[in-house]
Amino acid sequence: MDLNADLAESFGRWQLGEDDALLEIVTSANVACGFHAGDPGVIRRACELAAVRGVSVGAQVGYRDLAGFGRRFIDVEPRELTDDVLYQIGALSAFARIAGTEIAYVKPHGALYNAIVRHEEQAAAVVEAVRSYDPGLAALGLPGSRWLALAAEAGLPTYREAFADRAYTPEGTLVSRREPGAVLEDVDEIAQRCARMARGESISAVDGSEIQVSADSICLHGDSPGAVAAARAVRDRLTAEGAALVPFTRRA
Amino acid sequence: MDLNADLAESFGRWQLGEDDALLEIVTSANVACGFHAGDPGVIRRACELAAVRGVSVGAQVGYRDLAGFGRRFIDVEPRELTDDVLYQIGALSAFARIAGTEIAYVKPHGALYNAIVRHEEQAAAVVEAVRSYDPGLAALGLPGSRWLALAAEAGLPTYREAFADRAYTPEGTLVSRREPGAVLEDVDEIAQRCARMARGESISAVDGSEIQVSADSICLHGDSPGAVAAARAVRDRLTAEGAALVPFTRRA
Amino acid sequence: MDLNADLAESFGRWQLGEDDALLEIVTSANVACGFHAGDPGVIRRACELAAVRGVSVGAQVGYRDLAGFGRRFIDVEPRELTDDVLYQIGALSAFARIAGTEIAYVKPHGALYNAIVRHEEQAAAVVEAVRSYDPGLAALGLPGSRWLALAAEAGLPTYREAFADRAYTPEGTLVSRREPGAVLEDVDEIAQRCARMARGESISAVDGSEIQVSADSICLHGDSPGAVAAARAVRDRLTAEGAALVPFTRRA
Amino acid sequence: MDLNADLAESFGRWQLGEDDALLEIVTSANVACGFHAGDPGVIRRACELAAVRGVSVGAQVGYRDLAGFGRRFIDVEPRELTDDVLYQIGALSAFARIAGTEIAYVKPHGALYNAIVRHEEQAAAVVEAVRSYDPGLAALGLPGSRWLALAAEAGLPTYREAFADRAYTPEGTLVSRREPGAVLEDVDEIAQRCARMARGESISAVDGSEIQVSADSICLHGDSPGAVAAARAVRDRLTAEGAALVPFTRRA
Repeated sequence: MDLNADLAESFGRWQLGEDDALLEIVTSANVACGFHAGDPGVIRRACELAAVRGVSVGAQVGYRDLAGFGRRFIDVEPRELTDDVLYQIGALSAFARIAGTEIAYVKPHGALYNAIVRHEEQAAAVVEAVRSYDPGLAALGLPGSRWLALAAEAGLPTYREAFADRAYTPEGTLVSRREPGAVLEDVDEIAQRCARMARGESISAVDGSEIQVSADSICLHGDSPGAVAAARAVRDRLTAEGAALVPFTRRA
Repeated sequence: MDLNADLAESFGRWQLGEDDALLEIVTSANVACGFHAGDPGVIRRACELAAVRGVSVGAQVGYRDLAGFGRRFIDVEPRELTDDVLYQIGALSAFARIAGTEIAYVKPHGALYNAIVRHEEQAAAVVEAVRSYDPGLAALGLPGSRWLALAAEAGLPTYREAFADRAYTPEGTLVSRREPGAVLEDVDEIAQRCARMARGESISAVDGSEIQVSADSICLHGDSPGAVAAARAVRDRLTAEGAALVPFTRRA
Repeated sequence: MDLNADLAESFGRWQLGEDDALLEIVTSANVACGFHAGDPGVIRRACELAAVRGVSVGAQVGYRDLAGFGRRFIDVEPRELTDDVLYQIGALSAFARIAGTEIAYVKPHGALYNAIVRHEEQAAAVVEAVRSYDPGLAALGLPGSRWLALAAEAGLPTYREAFADRAYTPEGTLVSRREPGAVLEDVDEIAQRCARMARGESISAVDGSEIQVSADSICLHGDSPGAVAAARAVRDRLTAEGAALVPFTRRA
Repeated sequence: MDLNADLAESFGRWQLGEDDALLEIVTSANVACGFHAGDPGVIRRACELAAVRGVSVGAQVGYRDLAGFGRRFIDVEPRELTDDVLYQIGALSAFARIAGTEIAYVKPHGALYNAIVRHEEQAAAVVEAVRSYDPGLAALGLPGSRWLALAAEAGLPTYREAFADRAYTPEGTLVSRREPGAVLEDVDEIAQRCARMARGESISAVDGSEIQVSADSICLHGDSPGAVAAARAVRDRLTAEGAALVPFTRRA
C-alpha cells in the first residue's frame, strides 16, 4: 500500500500543514506547484526531504488561484489549462532535479481534482499536459474519474486513491462534505478502515452496508488539527500488520 | 555573431512585442518565464517557434512583479531569489522540452539584470540557481558585471552582450536612459554600428571617441514601435556582410 | 441616450484600449477596478479625465483573475464575491474622490457580467455588495438579467444597456460570439442602428425581422482595432440627429 | 495611552494572527489592505469587530508583494506608490463604511514602514496619498521618521509609536532584530515597560541606561506565539494602573 498527502501548501509568511512530520509518514508526496499554494522555498524543502526519505514526488497541480487556494472551479479554456499544468510540472521539476529525484506522478488539486471527475475537456487538457511532458508520468486520482480513464487511454500509468477519513456511499462514492458524518474523526476507526483497505477487505459505507474500495494509495489529510496524529496512526497500524508501504509508482 | 531579443512578454489579454517577427530575425530568444511577464501559452508558442527556426532558448528570469514588469528593484533574500530563479527555469524547461529543444542559457531581466551588475549577494544567488540546476547552462549579461564574474567562477560558460541601440560612454558603459541621446533611433546607424561590432571594429562613444566593445551577442529591442524594422535592418546588414549568425551557445 | 465603454483596462507595462480618445466620446465610463485589469495609475487617470469631461464613473467589477482578464467563470462563494466587489468599489472610490467626482453606478465585467444574467447566488452577491455600500448606486446591465431584477428588488436604480456592434436574435438576446455575424463591423451600420435605438425605433435582428431593444445606454467597445472610429461615428450620428447625450445616472 | 496591533493579515486559506482576541485588547487596529496581506473577507471582519468594540481603524498599507508579505523593499516610483496607497485606502474604506465606522489613520507596513523612516521620495509619496485622500487622516509611525515629518508639514495629524517588545538603543532607536536581545520575551517585563511609557517615565535601554520614549501609541505584536498573552498582560497592567486606554485619534 501507498500513503499520499498534500504538501508544500504554505506560501511566503503563511504556514500551512506539517510537511516535515508528514514526510516521515507518507510514501508519496503531492507537492503543490505554486498556482494554488506553494512558494519556491517550501517546494524546494519538500522535494529535498522527500528525496532523502525515499518518498515519491508528485505534482499537485491546480487552478491559478492563490486567493481561493485552488478550491473554486474556474472555467479555463482547455488549451490554457494544458499550458498551466505544464508550467507547474516544469516548475516543480527544477526542485525535484536539484534534490536528486524526479516527478513520478501528477495528482490535481482541489476544484480541479473535482472538476475532472466529470469535466471531459478539462480532464483531457490535464492528460494532454502530462502526456506531452512525459508519458511515463503516472496519474493519481479518483476511481471512475474521467481523468483516470482518459489518462489510461493516453497510455499513462494510472493509480486509484481512497480516502482515509472520508465516509463512502453504498455506491462507493464519497459522501458530500455538506452531509453529516462525511469526515471521520476517530483515529482508531480511520486506522482500522485503512488496514482493511490495505488487506483488500470491504469497509462500511455510511449506511452500514459493506463495500469494496480498491485503491493503490490512501490519501491522508495534513492540514487539519490532529491530522499528523491520524496519519501516524494509519502508518503504524499498517506497519504493525506487516503491510509493505511502498510508493505506488515504484511497485512495478 | 549572435542576435538576442526579449520574447514572450505578453500576459493573458495583454499583447506585447512581436514574437513571431522577431523569431525570424534573432538567433537567441530570451523567453520570459512568468514572474515579470509571460503566460504559459505565450511561453509555449515562443519555445515552439524557436525550436522550429533553430533559435536558441534562454531563460529570461526576473523578480516576481507583474505589476512592475520586473523593472523595480526588490530586496529579495538571496535564498529566496535562488529559489525564484529555479522555479522560473523549471517552468520554462517544460515548454522547451515539449517543443523538442532545451534551455541553453539564462539572461536576467530588467531590474534584476541591473541589480546583479553590482549586487554581490543577488548575483551569487542567481548563479547558484543556474549552477545547481545545470552547470552546462550559459550566462548571458553585461561585460564587467558581477553576474558574469561569479558565473565564470562557478564554472558556467559566460557570454557578453552589447546593445544595438544604446549609446556608450567613453569608458564602454551604457549611457543612462535619463541622458539625452541614450537611445539610438536611426535604423541605418544602428545597423552600421552592429556591423562594426560584428567585425570586431571600434564604435563611436557618445562623445565621439572610439571605443572597443567586445560582445558575443547583440541585444535587439522588440517592444518599441519600429523595433522589428530596426532588428531586421541589423540582421540584413550583418548577413549582407557575410557575418555568420549563429546562437552563441552553439559556437563552441 | 448614454454611451458607455470599458476603460482603465491596461495593467502596468501592458497598454490596452484608448482611454483618452474614448473619454471624449462616452458619457459613462466603466472603470476597471484592478481585479481583472486596471492598475492604480491607469484607474486614477481615467477618473481624472472623466471628472474633467463630465463623464459618469462606473465601477467595472470583475472576478479576481488578471491572467484570464476576468473572462473565465469562477465559482466563487457568494459571501466572498460580495466582499470582492466591495473591495473593488472601495478602491475605485478613492480615485473618484481625489478626482472630485464619485462612483455613480456598477457594471460587472466579462464572465461575471455573463454569469449574473442567470446565476442567482452570484447576482444576489453583487447586489448585496452594491446595496450595502450605497443603495443610491445604480446597476447597469443586460435587460432581463437576474442582476437587474435583484438590484431593482433591493431598491437600486437599474439601467439597461444595448450593444452597438452585436447582432440580436429575433427574441432580443445577443447572438453568441461563436456564430457568424455576431459582431457588426460596418461603421455606418453600427451608427445607424444606434441612432434607431436612440429614437426608440426597432432594429433588425440577425434573421432580418424587426425587434424592439429598449435601452438606457449603448455599450461601445474600446479595445479592438477601429473601435474608437466606430465609437466616434456613433456619437457623431446621435449628435447630428439631435439626441441629447447625457449620463444615464444624471437624467432623473 | 493607545494600544495598536496589526490585523487582517490572513489571506484566503492561510490564517495568521488572532484578530478576534486582539480586538478585545487594542484601541487601534492596523488593518491590512490586501497588498501584503488581507483578503476582503478578513478585512471586513476586522472592520466589523473594530466598529462594535469602539476600536479605531487604521489603514496598514504596504508594497504590492503577497509572496514577500510586504517585508522586502521595492523601489517603486513615487507616483506609483502614491496610487498604490490610495488604492489600498480606498479598498479598506468600503469595509469601514459598511461596518459603520471610518478610517482614522494610516500606518505603513513592513518594508515600507522601514523605508520611509529615511527614504524621502517614498515618504513623500505616502504622505501625498493620505493628504489627497483626506487631510484629516492621521499618520502613525516611528518618531523621527521622514514619514511623520513630511506628514506634519502637509498638515496631517501625526502620532508616534513605541514598541512593547523591542529593545531600544541608548539613542532611543530600535535595536536591530539581528542583534541578540532585540526582542523582549518576558511578559512581565514587557507589561512593566509599557506601564512606564504610559506614565511618561523613562525605560531601560539595551545597555542599561535610562531613556525617554515619548509615544502616543504602543505597538503590540499579534502574530507570534504568546503574542496575545503578552498583549493582554500589557492591557491589564495599564488598566490596573488606571491608565485611560483611548484611541489616539479620538483624544483631541
